[in-house]
Amino acid sequence: MARKLTRQDMKEAAEKYKNWGKWGPDDEIGTLNYTSAEDIVAATRLVKKGKVISLALNFDHLGPQGAKSKYPSMGRTNPIHTMLRTGTDAYSGVLDKRGIRAADDMVVMPLQCGTQWDGLGHVFYEDHMWNGYDCREVTSAGAQKCGIEKTKNKMVGRGVLLDVARYKGVDSLEDGYGITNEDLYGTAKKQKVELKRGDYVIVRTGMMERCQKAGSWDGYPGGDAPGFGFETLDFVKETELAALASDTWGCEVRPNPVAEGENINQPWHWITIPIMGMTMGEIFELKELADDCAADKVYEFLFVAPAIPITGAVGSPVNPLAIK
Amino acid sequence: MARKLTRQDMKEAAEKYKNWGKWGPDDEIGTLNYTSAEDIVAATRLVKKGKVISLALNFDHLGPQGAKSKYPSMGRTNPIHTMLRTGTDAYSGVLDKRGIRAADDMVVMPLQCGTQWDGLGHVFYEDHMWNGYDCREVTSAGAQKCGIEKTKNKMVGRGVLLDVARYKGVDSLEDGYGITNEDLYGTAKKQKVELKRGDYVIVRTGMMERCQKAGSWDGYPGGDAPGFGFETLDFVKETELAALASDTWGCEVRPNPVAEGENINQPWHWITIPIMGMTMGEIFELKELADDCAADKVYEFLFVAPAIPITGAVGSPVNPLAIK
Amino acid sequence: MARKLTRQDMKEAAEKYKNWGKWGPDDEIGTLNYTSAEDIVAATRLVKKGKVISLALNFDHLGPQGAKSKYPSMGRTNPIHTMLRTGTDAYSGVLDKRGIRAADDMVVMPLQCGTQWDGLGHVFYEDHMWNGYDCREVTSAGAQKCGIEKTKNKMVGRGVLLDVARYKGVDSLEDGYGITNEDLYGTAKKQKVELKRGDYVIVRTGMMERCQKAGSWDGYPGGDAPGFGFETLDFVKETELAALASDTWGCEVRPNPVAEGENINQPWHWITIPIMGMTMGEIFELKELADDCAADKVYEFLFVAPAIPITGAVGSPVNPLAIK
Amino acid sequence: MARKLTRQDMKEAAEKYKNWGKWGPDDEIGTLNYTSAEDIVAATRLVKKGKVISLALNFDHLGPQGAKSKYPSMGRTNPIHTMLRTGTDAYSGVLDKRGIRAADDMVVMPLQCGTQWDGLGHVFYEDHMWNGYDCREVTSAGAQKCGIEKTKNKMVGRGVLLDVARYKGVDSLEDGYGITNEDLYGTAKKQKVELKRGDYVIVRTGMMERCQKAGSWDGYPGGDAPGFGFETLDFVKETELAALASDTWGCEVRPNPVAEGENINQPWHWITIPIMGMTMGEIFELKELADDCAADKVYEFLFVAPAIPITGAVGSPVNPLAIK
Repeated sequence: MARKLTRQDMKEAAEKYKNWGKWGPDDEIGTLNYTSAEDIVAATRLVKKGKVISLALNFDHLGPQGAKSKYPSMGRTNPIHTMLRTGTDAYSGVLDKRGIRAADDMVVMPLQCGTQWDGLGHVFYEDHMWNGYDCREVTSAGAQKCGIEKTKNKMVGRGVLLDVARYKGVDSLEDGYGITNEDLYGTAKKQKVELKRGDYVIVRTGMMERCQKAGSWDGYPGGDAPGFGFETLDFVKETELAALASDTWGCEVRPNPVAEGENINQPWHWITIPIMGMTMGEIFELKELADDCAADKVYEFLFVAPAIPITGAVGSPVNPLAIK
Repeated sequence: MARKLTRQDMKEAAEKYKNWGKWGPDDEIGTLNYTSAEDIVAATRLVKKGKVISLALNFDHLGPQGAKSKYPSMGRTNPIHTMLRTGTDAYSGVLDKRGIRAADDMVVMPLQCGTQWDGLGHVFYEDHMWNGYDCREVTSAGAQKCGIEKTKNKMVGRGVLLDVARYKGVDSLEDGYGITNEDLYGTAKKQKVELKRGDYVIVRTGMMERCQKAGSWDGYPGGDAPGFGFETLDFVKETELAALASDTWGCEVRPNPVAEGENINQPWHWITIPIMGMTMGEIFELKELADDCAADKVYEFLFVAPAIPITGAVGSPVNPLAIK
Repeated sequence: MARKLTRQDMKEAAEKYKNWGKWGPDDEIGTLNYTSAEDIVAATRLVKKGKVISLALNFDHLGPQGAKSKYPSMGRTNPIHTMLRTGTDAYSGVLDKRGIRAADDMVVMPLQCGTQWDGLGHVFYEDHMWNGYDCREVTSAGAQKCGIEKTKNKMVGRGVLLDVARYKGVDSLEDGYGITNEDLYGTAKKQKVELKRGDYVIVRTGMMERCQKAGSWDGYPGGDAPGFGFETLDFVKETELAALASDTWGCEVRPNPVAEGENINQPWHWITIPIMGMTMGEIFELKELADDCAADKVYEFLFVAPAIPITGAVGSPVNPLAIK
Repeated sequence: MARKLTRQDMKEAAEKYKNWGKWGPDDEIGTLNYTSAEDIVAATRLVKKGKVISLALNFDHLGPQGAKSKYPSMGRTNPIHTMLRTGTDAYSGVLDKRGIRAADDMVVMPLQCGTQWDGLGHVFYEDHMWNGYDCREVTSAGAQKCGIEKTKNKMVGRGVLLDVARYKGVDSLEDGYGITNEDLYGTAKKQKVELKRGDYVIVRTGMMERCQKAGSWDGYPGGDAPGFGFETLDFVKETELAALASDTWGCEVRPNPVAEGENINQPWHWITIPIMGMTMGEIFELKELADDCAADKVYEFLFVAPAIPITGAVGSPVNPLAIK
C-alpha cells in the first residue's frame, strides 16, 4: 500500500520529474517530442494485417457524462448533436428552392466529454503550466500557450497496449486499485513487448467494459476507479513515452492516495501534465483492441490519433486508431 | 466547354453511376469499402521519412464561415470555443477548493464549418440517400442510416495528391474552372503516380492559398470556385477511389454548369454522395503537402483521417494526416 | 373517470374546438388575440401592493431536465451557461490590454428546458399547425409561421391563479389526476374570482413543490403527473382565455386517458395548440404567488410574461411576472 | 468639449459616485432598489391606451454581431437557433411513433448579443465589482455575486423615454456626440415629463434606426457612436434612476473622451456598473415607442422588462415592454 501523499511530496515530485526546458524554452508539446521520424517509419512497419481498430466511444447522449458521481462534473455534459437541415426537410420539399437536397449538422460538446486528449493546457502546477508558462496564458479566450492545435501533426507513432487487467487475471481491476510500476513492466514482459522511447502507451483496466456490462456509467465519471498509482511517475519518466492513455475517466487511481486533510485532488495529474509535459488520453474504448491482441499475441501497432486543432483548446475529442 | 446540365442529364447520370447494392443492401459506407486490408498494409510501406503533415485548418473564428458569399450559409458559422475553467481561475485561487488547478473547455461547431468529411447522409438524390435508403432516415434526431460513426475504423489508406494547379502551371486555378478527367489523369501521369482502387485522392486547386494570400475568405464559402467538372464522375468511377478531397469549400466547380432555368445546385454532389456512395473531404489545407511533394517528387503517402464518431452525424471535422 | 380516448375522439374534438380562421387567415397568435386593450388597462388597475412575483425557476444545471423519466427527453437538457470573459480574467490582469475589465457570457439552452411558453409552432395536428398552416412551415430553419417572435408585444393582461391543489385540500394533486372543468370553475368560485375573456389563467397542481420538497426532479419531466383532463377543452373554449399555464412539465394529465392500442400522446396538446391556437405556459413556479394569494385572498393580478423574440422559435424561456 | 479623462479622473469619479453599502453589505442589485412598491403601483396607473410596445430586436442571424467594427467582439456572435424536432419531421411521419407531432428547439447565444440587460457582474472597477465584492466572484462557473437571477422580480416600474435625437432636431445624433446633462434635462423639460427616483430611463439617439435605414450594422457593435458623456454620471446620481437604457451597442459615447496614452475603455461603464450599481440596457429598439410618444405627447409608461434568470449570468437577453 502506497504511502499517503502530502503537499511536501508534491513539491518533491515536482522537482524530481520536471522536464521544463528539456525541449527548449518555447516548447508547447512536451513528451510528444520523444517520438522521432525514425520511430514513425518503424511503427508503420508493424502493420501486418491491415486491420484498423477505433478506440473511440461514439459521441452521443449515451456517453458517460451525467452519470452519478461523487465528484461534480463542473460543466461536462454529453455532446448535443443538432441538425441544421435534414432529410425530412428534403422529403417535405422545403429545400428544393436551394436546388439541392442536403443535410447539415452541428455539435455542442465539452472537449473532455468522451474519448479525448488532455492537452498540456489542461492542468496547472500552482501558477504554472507545462514548461513553466504562466497559468494566466489560459484565459476565457483559450490557451495562448500549449493549445491542442500545437499537436496538429503529432499523435502518430508506435502504440503499445498494456493489458493490465488480463495480466492480473481479472475482467476489471477493482476501484481504488493503484497500478504499480511492477504491474506495467510485468505486463509488458508477459506480453513479450519491449517499451521504447516515444511510444504511445495504452493501459487497459477493464473498468469501461465493467460499466458497459452493467449498463450504467454510474460512478465512472469522477468516481472511484482503478488507475495509475503515484509511483508510476517513474514508469513515465523511465520509458520516455510520448503519451499515455487508458479506459477510465481520468487515468489515475481514485480515491487518490492522499493524506487526510491535504487538499490534493488527482496528484498524478499535477505532475504528469504540467511538470512532465505528458499528454494524456482518457475514456479510450479498448475491448476490441485487447481481444485482438490477446488473439494474435501482438501488442504493438501503428497508432494514429490526431487531435482536432481547435485553436486554444486544452483538450480534444479524438478517434484514436490502432492499425495492426 | 462542358454542356449545360439539365434534369434529364441528372437522371441519366444517376442511372449510369449508381453503386447502390454493390456492397450489399445494408451497406452504409459506400466507396470506403474499396480500400482493402492489403491496401492499408501497402500504404504503410510508403512511409519513408517519418514526416507527418496535417491537412487541417485550425478551427477558430478565423475560419472561412461568415465571409461574403453569393450563397447563404444556412447556419454554418465558425466554431465557438469557450472555457469551462481557466488558468485565470487557477491564478485567482477559485479552483483550490477542488484540490486541483485545471482548465476545461467546450466547442459549439457546425460539423461542416472547416476541414471536414461530408458523410453519406449529407446529400440526397430526390427522396433517397446512399444505397437507396429513404431520406427520412435523416431526421432532426440525426442520421439513422449512414451516420459518420459508421466510418469509425475507415479513413486509412494510400493517399495521392494530384496537384492540378501545379500541373497547369498556375498558383491557383481560376474560379469557374471545371477540372476535367484529362486534368486528373494528366496530373497523375506527370507526377509519375499511378492511381489504384481504394485510394484517398486529394486534389489541389490552389484556391485556399489564394484566399490566404489575399487575407480574406470572401467568396470562398459558396462562391465561385475552381473544382471538379461533372465529367469527373467518370474519373471517380474508373479509379474506384475510396474518397476524394480538395482545398475548396465544396470540391465542385462553381458556378455549376447547369442549363438556365434548371433548379440544380451542386450537380456533382447529387451523384457522388447519394448515388456513388463517395465520402468527400472539403476545406483541406494543402500547401505544406504540395510543397513537400514537389520537393521530393513523391505524391503518394499513408493517409489517416479519422472522423469523430458523432452518432448520427452527416459530417465531421477532421485533422487529416499525410504521413510520408 | 373519463372515457379513454380514441383517434375518432380526436377527430371530433378537432372539429368541435377548431378556431382556425377566427382571427383571419393570416393570424399567427391565436387566443392571445382575446386580450383587448381595455383588458390591459383594467389589468393594470389590479395592482394595489406594488409587489412583483416571479414565476420562473432559475435557469441552470439544477433544472428538471435529465431527471429520470419514462419518456425520453428528445434532446432537452438543462441550460449550459459559459463565460466568455470573467472576473478571474480581470483579476489576473489579462483583460487590461482592452482598457476595461468586463465579463461576458453565453448560454446553450433548449427553449423548452425550463419555465417556458409553448408557441403555436410547437404542436401539429396531422399535417397542420395553428390556423391551418402547413406543418412544413416549421423546418430545420425554424418556424416560418407562428414563430414566437410574433408574440413580441403580447403576454400582457389580467392573470388569474386557480389554486386547484388548495381547493382540493391537498399539498399536491396526485400523479394521474385529471383536472376537471368542475375543479377549475369550483376553484374560481371558492376564490371569488370571475374568469373573463382574454385572461391569463395559471393553474397550480402543487406538483413542482412536491418535487422540490423531495429534492429530486425524478418523474417530473415527462412522467406521470396531475394535469388538465381532456374535458377541460370546454373550459378553454368557454372562458376564451388568452393563455393557460401550470406548474407541471406539460400541463396535461399523465398517463394520458387514451384507449389501449391507440398511438396518441398528449391528446389535450393536439387540440389546444394547433386547433384552438392556445399558447401554453409550463414549468411555472407558483409557490410564492399561491402563498401570497392565499394570504390576501386576491387571486387576480397584472400578468406580464414577454417571450424572448427568437425568430422562428417554437417556444421561449420566460420570466413571468405576477404584479399585485 | 469635455476634458479628456485620465486615470486620476477615474479615481476621483469612483470616490464621488460610489454607492457601495447604500443598500447594505449584502446587496446585489444596486439602483434597482430605488423603485418602491408605491412607484410600481403609480406606474401601472400610467397605462391609458392598453398599448404594448416591444423594445426588442428579434434575436436571429440578422442581429448586429459580426458587423464590421474597430473593436473586436471577444466572442459575441448572433444567436444560433436550431431545431430538435420539426414540422418536416412530422410531415415525414418520423415522429408518429411518439404519438405526437411536435417541434422543439434550442438556442446558442451570447447573453450580450442583442437587446439586453448588462447585470452588475458585467464590469469591474479594478479588483472589485458592485458593492465592493471581489471580482473573483465571477469565475468560469459564473457570477457567485450579482448574477442576473438576483433581479428576477425587478425591472418593473415607471418608464420614461428621453428622445434626445428629436430634442436636438435630428434623425440621429452623430457618432462621437457625447450626450450632456443639459441634453437629458432639456429633453425631459421639453417633453414635459418630470424624472422621479426609481425610474427606468430610456434614451433615444436614433443610431439604431440610422443603421436599419442603411441596411447595415457596420460600425454599430463597438464602433464610434453617440452616447452618454462622462458628465452624465451626475444625471444618474441626481435622478436616482433604477436603470438606464439606450438604442446603441454600449450606451456610452465612442470614441471615449480619454486622454491620449491612457488605457481606459468605456470610462462611463467603469463607474456606472461597479461603482454606482446601475443596471444598463443596450440595443433597445426605440422607433415604435418614439413615434408613439411623439404622437400622443406622453413620454411616460409602465415599463416591464424581466431578465431571464440564468443563474450566475452577467447579463440577459430581454424583451422590454413599454405599456401605455
